[in-house]
Amino acid sequence: MSDKALIIVAHGSRKASSNEEVRTLGDNVRALRDKEYAYVTTSFLEFAKPSLKESILSCIDKGIGEIVILPYFLASGHHVTRDIPEVIDDIRSSYPQIKITLKAHLGSSTGMVRLLNDMAK
Amino acid sequence: MSDKALIIVAHGSRKASSNEEVRTLGDNVRALRDKEYAYVTTSFLEFAKPSLKESILSCIDKGIGEIVILPYFLASGHHVTRDIPEVIDDIRSSYPQIKITLKAHLGSSTGMVRLLNDMAK
Repeated sequence: MSDKALIIVAHGSRKASSNEEVRTLGDNVRALRDKEYAYVTTSFLEFAKPSLKESILSCIDKGIGEIVILPYFLASGHHVTRDIPEVIDDIRSSYPQIKITLKAHLGSSTGMVRLLNDMAK
Repeated sequence: MSDKALIIVAHGSRKASSNEEVRTLGDNVRALRDKEYAYVTTSFLEFAKPSLKESILSCIDKGIGEIVILPYFLASGHHVTRDIPEVIDDIRSSYPQIKITLKAHLGSSTGMVRLLNDMAK
């Protein structure tokens, strides 16, 4: 088991079922990735818990040394360009020994074109 | 060339660059799918043009007989469950001869798990 964690961070919705969709997706990603990541979880910026900060701190509590953050956002709005980096910078200043990697947001993935293409079939 | 069109419908953003991200994605999907679809375009529910209704009417003007609509949404909120179907029902009542298929929203695709998995590597 690695000491690496993956946190999928979504916007969060007032609609509970939308947040459940994200959590289920996280569960399904976890089922695929248990070898590379010791821990896979979902977090939210608004309207749902845990927050991104809470998720990161929970990983650190568990002894995780490396955290990869994947923004589950279609577009690079302020949440992607400002809010998520701010949370990470804040954590880094308190826990400089933890390696935190911020991935590009979902919508920028080259795989998105392929996925839409598959869905259009 | 088929007489089939694909319309990718996104929420739309006040941030012009976010709408451009969607249009570029549409361009890239178009590049892959020119054999199955005579026409691939993007449309928006808010803040950007063309609207979904405008896109559908434009397809009908072009003589397209079959339109596939793919909601570029991560969660099945009101836009997916109510607003998009309402536009489609409205068009269907005026143009019953046009076949319109509404696909499931992006976030519900089984390929999304694989995409996140690939991105987490």
